[in-house]
Order: sequence, then structure tokens, then C-alpha cells
Amino acid sequence: MGDNSFGTLFSFTSFGESHGKAIGCIVDGVPPGLPLSEEAIQPYMDRRRPGQNRFVTQRREADKVEILSGVFEEKTTGTPISLIIKNTDQRSKDYGDIAKQYRPGHADFTYDAKYGHRDYRGGGRSSARETAVRVAAGAIADLALKAILGETFQLYGSVVQIGPHEINRDNFDRNQIDQNPFFCGDKEAAKNWEDYLDGVRKQGSSAGAVLEIVASGIPVGLGQPIYGKLDAEIASAMMSINAAKGVEIGSGFGLSAIPGHQAGDEMRIGDDGAPTFLSNHNGGVLGGISTGQDIVARVAIKPTSSILTPRKSISSDGIATDVVTKGRHDPCVGIRGVPVAEAMLAIVLLDQLMRHHAQTAILPR
Amino acid sequence: MGDNSFGTLFSFTSFGESHGKAIGCIVDGVPPGLPLSEEAIQPYMDRRRPGQNRFVTQRREADKVEILSGVFEEKTTGTPISLIIKNTDQRSKDYGDIAKQYRPGHADFTYDAKYGHRDYRGGGRSSARETAVRVAAGAIADLALKAILGETFQLYGSVVQIGPHEINRDNFDRNQIDQNPFFCGDKEAAKNWEDYLDGVRKQGSSAGAVLEIVASGIPVGLGQPIYGKLDAEIASAMMSINAAKGVEIGSGFGLSAIPGHQAGDEMRIGDDGAPTFLSNHNGGVLGGISTGQDIVARVAIKPTSSILTPRKSISSDGIATDVVTKGRHDPCVGIRGVPVAEAMLAIVLLDQLMRHHAQTAILPR
Amino acid sequence: MGDNSFGTLFSFTSFGESHGKAIGCIVDGVPPGLPLSEEAIQPYMDRRRPGQNRFVTQRREADKVEILSGVFEEKTTGTPISLIIKNTDQRSKDYGDIAKQYRPGHADFTYDAKYGHRDYRGGGRSSARETAVRVAAGAIADLALKAILGETFQLYGSVVQIGPHEINRDNFDRNQIDQNPFFCGDKEAAKNWEDYLDGVRKQGSSAGAVLEIVASGIPVGLGQPIYGKLDAEIASAMMSINAAKGVEIGSGFGLSAIPGHQAGDEMRIGDDGAPTFLSNHNGGVLGGISTGQDIVARVAIKPTSSILTPRKSISSDGIATDVVTKGRHDPCVGIRGVPVAEAMLAIVLLDQLMRHHAQTAILPR
Amino acid sequence: MGDNSFGTLFSFTSFGESHGKAIGCIVDGVPPGLPLSEEAIQPYMDRRRPGQNRFVTQRREADKVEILSGVFEEKTTGTPISLIIKNTDQRSKDYGDIAKQYRPGHADFTYDAKYGHRDYRGGGRSSARETAVRVAAGAIADLALKAILGETFQLYGSVVQIGPHEINRDNFDRNQIDQNPFFCGDKEAAKNWEDYLDGVRKQGSSAGAVLEIVASGIPVGLGQPIYGKLDAEIASAMMSINAAKGVEIGSGFGLSAIPGHQAGDEMRIGDDGAPTFLSNHNGGVLGGISTGQDIVARVAIKPTSSILTPRKSISSDGIATDVVTKGRHDPCVGIRGVPVAEAMLAIVLLDQLMRHHAQTAILPR
Repeated sequence: MGDNSFGTLFSFTSFGESHGKAIGCIVDGVPPGLPLSEEAIQPYMDRRRPGQNRFVTQRREADKVEILSGVFEEKTTGTPISLIIKNTDQRSKDYGDIAKQYRPGHADFTYDAKYGHRDYRGGGRSSARETAVRVAAGAIADLALKAILGETFQLYGSVVQIGPHEINRDNFDRNQIDQNPFFCGDKEAAKNWEDYLDGVRKQGSSAGAVLEIVASGIPVGLGQPIYGKLDAEIASAMMSINAAKGVEIGSGFGLSAIPGHQAGDEMRIGDDGAPTFLSNHNGGVLGGISTGQDIVARVAIKPTSSILTPRKSISSDGIATDVVTKGRHDPCVGIRGVPVAEAMLAIVLLDQLMRHHAQTAILPR
Repeated sequence: MGDNSFGTLFSFTSFGESHGKAIGCIVDGVPPGLPLSEEAIQPYMDRRRPGQNRFVTQRREADKVEILSGVFEEKTTGTPISLIIKNTDQRSKDYGDIAKQYRPGHADFTYDAKYGHRDYRGGGRSSARETAVRVAAGAIADLALKAILGETFQLYGSVVQIGPHEINRDNFDRNQIDQNPFFCGDKEAAKNWEDYLDGVRKQGSSAGAVLEIVASGIPVGLGQPIYGKLDAEIASAMMSINAAKGVEIGSGFGLSAIPGHQAGDEMRIGDDGAPTFLSNHNGGVLGGISTGQDIVARVAIKPTSSILTPRKSISSDGIATDVVTKGRHDPCVGIRGVPVAEAMLAIVLLDQLMRHHAQTAILPR
Repeated sequence: MGDNSFGTLFSFTSFGESHGKAIGCIVDGVPPGLPLSEEAIQPYMDRRRPGQNRFVTQRREADKVEILSGVFEEKTTGTPISLIIKNTDQRSKDYGDIAKQYRPGHADFTYDAKYGHRDYRGGGRSSARETAVRVAAGAIADLALKAILGETFQLYGSVVQIGPHEINRDNFDRNQIDQNPFFCGDKEAAKNWEDYLDGVRKQGSSAGAVLEIVASGIPVGLGQPIYGKLDAEIASAMMSINAAKGVEIGSGFGLSAIPGHQAGDEMRIGDDGAPTFLSNHNGGVLGGISTGQDIVARVAIKPTSSILTPRKSISSDGIATDVVTKGRHDPCVGIRGVPVAEAMLAIVLLDQLMRHHAQTAILPR
Repeated sequence: MGDNSFGTLFSFTSFGESHGKAIGCIVDGVPPGLPLSEEAIQPYMDRRRPGQNRFVTQRREADKVEILSGVFEEKTTGTPISLIIKNTDQRSKDYGDIAKQYRPGHADFTYDAKYGHRDYRGGGRSSARETAVRVAAGAIADLALKAILGETFQLYGSVVQIGPHEINRDNFDRNQIDQNPFFCGDKEAAKNWEDYLDGVRKQGSSAGAVLEIVASGIPVGLGQPIYGKLDAEIASAMMSINAAKGVEIGSGFGLSAIPGHQAGDEMRIGDDGAPTFLSNHNGGVLGGISTGQDIVARVAIKPTSSILTPRKSISSDGIATDVVTKGRHDPCVGIRGVPVAEAMLAIVLLDQLMRHHAQTAILPR
């Protein structure tokens, strides 16, 4: 598969640079007959869209999605859906200075070394701008999952840490997530983060974040052992997001520290006669297969690499230089990562659901 | 690709259950002309082999690898290499009790729910026994990398945490790793872990671990953005290991907590005239592409799920029961995960090297 | 891989319907540093473009290719290249009559049965319009092959049979191919085909064709046994072309009829000291691997299914009906298949070259 | 995917050389709960097994299949099934002479040129021996299709031409196929072929063949346009068979010669109220999707390349030589190709059925 594609049965292939004519993708394998329109995708885009408050980049992109194929009379036809988003607010001159400079923490150096030829404008292909495409593809996955699984299916992400400051789990309220600029479920934490981020920005620095994505109503059985495990694909999906440096499922690294008799999730038969778990340390995945519990994934996003503070670097000519990145950048790129991580999880889940269905629902049991 | 396969150009497909006749794999895409024999692979197997000390399972498997194809006159031919390891020391009766019980933390429940029919003996396909196959495939990858990259290439893993007890980085000495039963680079920590694990075992419990795998001498440029990123594939590889619940690259989750001006790895021209980095927070990967620095990955392994402490569960008939796992189990399954994680990293690196080569070394620059 | 994708390392993913907004593709895995522009691709498109003479459909499409990504300063960057071709001359009303009718020989019935929802306008996704996308992707492959292999590389196709009328091999002159409306290498045959096709059209019928595609200057060694054989991939590539019903390599079906002592291509050392073959019955492929001789593939294209002659069919409501296809159709769709088949061969060859290179040129011999 | 793998959801990966220890494969994606045993697979092997009459090679292999994994209590578990066939009757010394000679029509030269290192014994990996593995994998596919589709599903192949001698279609009787050494449905033709082949053998030569494989009871809708078309995958499957040089679907090349008003298969509503076709020129595939009619594929197999007649060739040292192949060879390798081509078709059909099911049966219509 091309390296710009993701997914097996439900898949998408992405293209585009930060300052090119457009970005977009082709989504393949979509179940036919799904109601779909540009209007249905747009709300997903709007959640990720830059320029909405002072904690995200001030680049203003409409991020208007256009559907070029695969939809007829507002329903999917089963043929590939081409989605395109035009770039409108590029200011390439902002990047003139850094055409030859390697920004610390950025992919400038590695792209140059790998390809020998690089579209440096706005970070080119390595820009977080590419993530808009994932959100568009993820919107289709999310709508399909809703149509297949019904109302029990829910998928939402939030920021659970900015810089060193975690939320208080006791305060978590899912309804708070869209009430603040941070996709934060803890009202108090959100307030403190405002001050923290204002401080960071004044310093000319930036902050990292930890995101948590949860999916409910996922049937037991999704996941293809051994190398298509549900959690292995979630890990790949999350780590492919710009600036991601870590992924956890359930209690993750914390699970390494507690003894085995506390770690396994015990089971009983629930009041409804169905198997039920007494805890969810494993984040809804055992042996690479969904348990029917909430799927819980966490992603570590490093601090934005484009900052005003001068740092030591070199140019492509091999000359030592001090780099300052002007442009318009997110002080905490992790915040806008929430809709992106949600999209990636939706894509993994739909793809796995289709693969599970293909193998296990074809022979009468 | 089949869900029991891993890799794109250099790939392997695995088979086998804990208590079946044999386990094994087919390794495809091996460069031709590589010196290879069963004797060359065996030392890799021996490092992972059970029954070697009291901190790992007492099941005694010779783990003798047999090559069935793809090697002629002790050199690879470029055709697929079939590797087979016979199972010799199965005691299936140990598992009679749990044929119908779902062990907490295990894949018993999810396999049953997914497939409706399950080889329960020794955990069947979900047993850590499958990881022997990865080590065999990884041995070939490691030998090929050595032949291609020469002596600068080095790849080694170690345990950096058992239960809540981390090593002291100041004590780390790579030469210590093979001098204790824990693949631990800190002599002091290893000593303390002995006591800790003895205690855990007496309790009838088990312990988790954190592994760290490092590869040196990796050229700059490996990694295929956007969805074949080097770190995304490492994440998938590591998370596919039994009991893995988290993956980090470089400083990982720790990077989310520090400010941006400390997080980016600054650059200078080194004494040898080549670009050099002043730190390695990013674990040798930027934008999904290797920087030429050490690749550093960490994996969280949860405590062994098979323990003597009774826990609440249900049977496949839906009856509440208390589960005690007898059998022979690793008190800390993470320890034997080291050679497995090394193998997976070697496989990712060789595969990526071949893909990088195919795209970027074919057109004269 | 998505089912609208083709290729392993050099790959493309296609989208678009006959009467949608646009058709296009994303080409992935392109070697970086290749000079590329819209102007360089356009001549390939123009060869396939409809409306150029009375033997092809009178639909007039500019087939102007636009590059949206992956090219910077007129060189490829190694990132995915998005190519888009806007649809401009749709006359959807031509198809009002057949929205519910299944045209014999067409995919109308099968798309409806498979997907339950179909863009019937102009055949939707099953229209030959999709082949324009292949030509665009193939142009990049052809330009890359030229850059890698140099002038010895040549790739050209021609029509060798229309209806029951074959060319005379003795008259074949490659320079004639672009001198007539049929891509025909035999001047005499081309003249006769004019009369034949005029007759067929007056009858309200159509004609089939056989295409032959030849590639010279291909190095020995391309092809990945056993299931990625060069000829197996050529077969898949050619059979994926609309209306294709057969594929041959070298003497093909004719080889089944002659005795073994005539069939094998004998060898000698040539004047240049290199191995040489005394015949090419095998079409440049032995054991799935290129021999260094000309690669020769032939494709059978059935007669255009959209004809004026009324034929028995049914509607999607299950009512018997007689179908007449008005629209604007090629009397012999095989003719415009030549640039398409050339494109598909170029794509297979570049992809195989990259795969061969990855496996066999990475370890010093 | 590895180049020794075939299939997307139902897939197999093959290994083994003619004179190695064993050949075999791993079959992945098998639906769980399918009754399966070595005894159920063996009859498929026996049909292809050498040494059964004077028209096939006298090498005597038991071709006894052993199942190493993926089956528990005589039912598939959904995990990979490893199948192994030991080589028992190798006479490697037969090949001593040709260790360095390139047999005309064989892959000796191309393997050497590609890989630089080759197991020459018995043709190594390029031997028709590998096809036993396909038959084993195909047996599982056939059994699964029977379990899913029931008795309406039928799949059978036959030889319809040997050398220049075709069967008479009027004499065709499916029940005859297993009554003669040629898998021939025409009793008269079979008689004539005996004489013809005896003559060819006495001459020290060999004969080609054309095979025809038919599948009935295939539901409408299988096939994934555009590049996973049912016929494109059949073409790839068939062309991957040793010595195959051509593939046709339905009337194939013959369809190129007849006018369009005869070529399209007309439709009516049948007596059972379902759509019915009045002919099957298209071999059960339209637009890459099954029509519900019989799937009809034909394969051209070239004459066996290993013959006693001396032919001009060269050695790997570049010296001109005359090659005579002793060994034990099929005078017409096409005959034993029948069970192989049947197996490949079964594999394509099951894989496509699963892919169709995954995309189109997941959303309620």
C-alpha cells in the first residue's frame, strides 16, 4: 500500500502540502447507501479549524470540504470518495527566512536528507495542515459507525494534560469538553490552562499535551490478531499524528507499575445476563480484540516546535545559525489534535469492524 | 495483507498455537546472498528461551529453529524462508480446568467471543509462545542489517523498570545487560528486582515492566510519511507484542510536560563536518523519518495475567467462578519481552531501509 | 489496499465518475527529484483524448491535467502527487432513458446488484472515462522509467486487430502508429479498418480489437515470484482495463499449440559478450522474471457495448425492455485503449523495478 | 504484501523448493468454525499428484498434507493454518548436469540474473512442485465456499486443448472429466490425445494445453472495481501458474472478432422472476463484477520446457552449450495444471466473497 494510505478495507489516501493549491484524500471501501453530503462533514472540520481562539494558530482557513466523487443523490455509491480542501490563506513569505534553515524539533532536516528536494513553505507535507484531511475521512467513518452501530456508539476525545498540568479526574464532565478552548472535560483545569498557556506564549515558548480518546458501544470481537491487533492499529494511527511521541491503551504505562492481582480486569455476569467487567485497566482490548468495554487510548503530543525563542541549528548549506520561527503557530498544537485523534480512532474502528464482519459473519454459526 | 503478517518489503507471516505441533513463520523479501544457517539464528532464540532461571516460566522448550526453504549452500536465495520450531514440552492437562474459564486480563473471553471456537490449551494463539517466531524472523533482519550497515549498526534492548522500580540511568552500563536474569543495564537495580520479584511470586502475583530498545548506526532518512512513519510502525510493532499497553519514542509522554524551548533537539555541525544534534528528546525520529541519531523506543508490558491469586470471573457457560491459573508462567513476562522487542525493531528497520532505498536510490541525484 | 489502488511501491489511487465534477488520482511512491510539470503530462493525455476523429466518441473533453501536490519548483518531492481532471462536457440528459435500464454487456446490472445505489449518468464509475486517470499516472511512470533507464527504454502500443481483421506483421512499421486514427503499425490494415468501421457504425453496431504493447530496454531480473510475477501483474493490469476480456504474454495462446522443441527460446552469447536469445516466444518473461528481451503483452478488447441496435434487456424494476443506447460512444473502444494499456504497463514496470532494486541492490554482491 | 502471498482477506503465503526439505503455506483469514482435517484436504492433493499415469512426471510424491496449526477439534479456529508437505522423492543428482546450464524456456537464467544465487536442484523455487501448495490452500477455499454457498456452488476445470487439438464442445460431458488421464470432458478427444502425446514423447518433445475452469452458483456482486476486479484477479491468479502464457474470460479473444450486437449478453426476467441472461459471452463478469452466471476462465499453458531434444543454450559461465534435460518431466505440464487452476479460482472467489460481504452487508439496506 502506498505510504500515504491508511486502512485495509475502509481506507484513505492523503495528499497535499501546507502551501500548495489544495489538500485532500480519496476514501475507499465506504459502505454504499450511507447518507452523505458536504454539510454532514463540515461540522467535523469546523472543530479542528484554525483561527478560532488565541490558543491556536491565527492562520484562517475556511477548511471547506468539497466532495468530487462517490456520492450520488446524497448517498454513498460504494465507489471512492474524493474530498478536497483548498488552501486559501497561505503566507509563504513568512517562511522565506527558513527555506534553508532546519527548525529544531521539525522535519525540515529529515525531509531534506531523505528526499534531497523539499517544499519548505509552511513545512510542506510535514505540516499539521495535513491533519484536516484525516478529519474529513474520519467524519465518514464516524457517520458510518453511527449508521451501523446506532446510538450506543459514542466517540469523543479530550485534552487531559497541558504541559505538566493534568486534569482532576473527579471533575471530569463530558459535557464540558466543547465549552472551553481546550476540549477539556475539567472546567477548573481549563481555567488554569488559560493562564499557563498565556505565560508560555509570552515566553516565546510552547506546551505539550496529552489527549484521551474514548469510544463506547463497540461490540466485542473487533481486532485481528496477531499483527492487525486493534491496539496495534490504534498505536500506529495515533503515532502517525504530527508531534505524537507516545501512545497508551487503558492504564498504559501505569499498568507496568501495579501488581498482577490488581491489573487484570475481573468479570461477572451483569444484571442483564451479559458478561461484565469490574474495571477497565486494559482499555477495552484483550489479546488485541475488543472486550465490549470502552476503548480508551491516550496520545502524548510534544510542544509545538515552531517558537519565537531562538535556538541553535544549521542551514542546508551546513552553516551554524540561530533559528526563530515567525509564522502563525499553535502555542499548543495538541489542542487541535483532539478532532484528529478522534478521526483516526473512528477510521480504525470502522475498518476493523468490516474486517471482523468479513471473517466471522460469513459462515453460519 | 493477512493479519498474521508484518512488514511491507521485508515481511513475515506467523502461525502456531502454544500446544499445537509447531509454531513458525515464512520470511519473505530477504535480500539474496546473505550468509544464513540454523546455527546463526539459534543464539537469538536462546536469549528468549524459557526455563533458564527462576524469574521466567519453567516450561522447557529447546526452541530449536529449523530452516525449511530459501537457503541454499548456507546463503539466502531471495525466496521465502520457512522457519519452524516444534513444540515439545506441552502439558495440556495443566489447562483442563480453564478450558471454560475466562482468566482475567487474558484473551480467553475475547477469542471465544470473536471466533466462537478456540484452542484453549496454553492460551492457544494468544500465548506468548508465538513471540519465539518473531525472534527467529528478527534474527534474519538483524543479520541483514549488520551485513548492509556494517559495524556501526547496533541494536539492543533492556528492562528499565520492573513493577514500580526504575533503574538509575547513571548506573546504566550496556555490558551489564547480559550479566543478570533481567536484561538490566543497572547492576544495583537488578539486585533489588530479585527481591522484589521473589516477593511478588510468593504473593501469587506478578509484575509489569518497561522495556527500552535502542538502535545505533541507523542512517538518516528511514521512514515513509505520512502513514508509514518510522515511529508509527515501531508503535504498531511494539503494541503487537503480548501484554504491551504503551509505547513511547524518545522522551515520549515526558515530552508533553516540558516547554517547547527545551523540547526541540538543537543542531550544530560536528567536528566531522556532519550535522549533529545536541540532545535526543525525539528518539531519533522527526516527522516520521530517522535523524541519524539513536532510535529509542520504550514499551510498557503489563503484569503476567496468569497468577495463583484467585480472581472473579465467569465461564463460557455464563457462570460466575473464581479463577486460579496453575500452569507454568513468567512472574514478569516483560523480561522475556526484550529479545522480542529487539526483533520487532530490527524487522521494522530493515523493511524501512529497503523501502527508503527503493524510492530514493533509484534515480541518480 | 483499497480496491481503487494499483501498485505496491509506485502506486496510484483513482476516483471519479463519468459525469461527476472531476476524475483524478493520487500517485504515491514517486522517486524524488524527477522533473515534472503539467505540460510534461499533457501529451500523454492528448493521445487518449476523445473527439479527435470519427472513430472515437464525439464527447469533447479537454482532459487538462492539474497537479495539486507533490511537485515543487518543477521537480517531484517524493510526496504524493494529486492529479485532477475536471469533467466539462457531460450531457447527463442523454442518459435519462437508461437510468433504470440495464444495457447488455455493460456494468449497469452488476453495479446495481452489488451496491444497491448507482450513479447511472454516463456509466458512472464503470465508464471508460476513468481510464484518463491511468494515462496521467502512467505518464509519470513513463517519465521516471526514461530518467532511470535512459534512451534504451522504449514503450509503445498499437492495435493489431479490429473485428476479425488482423494486421500483416510483415507490414509493421512502428513509425506508422501515430499516422492513422487507429494506432496501427500496418498502413494497409489501417486503410481497410476505415471501411470496416464505417460499415459497423452504419449498422448501429461496434467492433472489438486486440492491442499489443511492447517495452524495450527493460533490464533482466524484474518480477517477483511467485505471486508478484511480472506477467501476473501485467495480466491484472491489462484485465482491469474496461472491456478487456483476455491477456497474452509473448506468443500466448499460440504457444499452447506448438511442440516444446519449438517453444523454448534458445540462447547464445551475443557479439557483445552478453547472453542473447534466438527468439522471443515467451514475451520477455521466464518464471515471472524479465529476460532482458522485449516485454510483449496483448489485450483483447470486446466491442463497445453501447450501440444503437435495439437489444433485449430488463429494467431495475424487473420489466422486460428493449435497450437502445444513444449517447456518444466509440465505435471501437479498443482504439483509445492503446494509451491506457501503455500507461498500465509503464506503471507495472516502474513498480517492479523499484521492488527489484529494494531486494537485490541493497546488499553488496 | 510479501510477493509469495496471494489474496486480501482470505490469503495464503507459500514457501519451498523442489528439492528442499518441504514445501507448504500459511493460510490466513479462514472463517472460524469450518470443519477441516488432513483427510478433507487430501483428495484435492491426490488429483494433482504426480506419478499416476504415463502422461505425467514419474516422480512419486505422496503429497501428504500435514496441518500444523489453526485447527482444533477438527474445526478451524480463525487463526492461521499452516500446511506442510514433505519432499520425499528428490533425485538431486539428476540435476547435476544442469547446475550451471540454462534450460531454454526455463527460469534458470532469470533466477540467476535476478538473485545471483540459486537453488538449481529440480528448478528450485520455480519448479511446478510449488503448485501442490496452491492446491492445499485451494482445498480450504473450496470447502469454505461449499459451506457458505451450499450445493449450488460447483467449481471444476478441464483440459480443452492439447497441442493443436481442441475438444469438440458438442461432446463435452462433465462426468467424463475424471474418467481419463487428461481431465478431458470429451471422450473422443481424450482418446486422440493419447496417441498425440505418445508421439510427442517419442520425439523427445512436449505439448502445451488450454485449460478451462468454470464456477457455478456464484452470487451476483462479487468483484471490487476498479483494480480489484474479479476478472483482473482471476487473470493474475491464472498467470501466476507455472508455464501460463495467456488468460481469457468468457469468449475472450474471440469476442474481439465479433460485432457488438452479437457480443453483449441480452437479458430477460426468467421463469423464477429473477433476471436471466440469454448468453454468456462475458464469462459471468461485467465491469469486474460477477453477474450470477457461470464464471468461465481459460488459461494457456506452454509446452513443458524440460525435454530430451537438445537445444542451444549457455552456461552460467557464459559458454555456449547444448542442453538436454533428463530428470522426470510431464510431457504436457498443462494436464496437472487443472487442479491448480481450480484451486486458484476457488481462492479468488472466497476472497472476493469476503470483501464483498464486508463492504455491502454491513449497513442495513
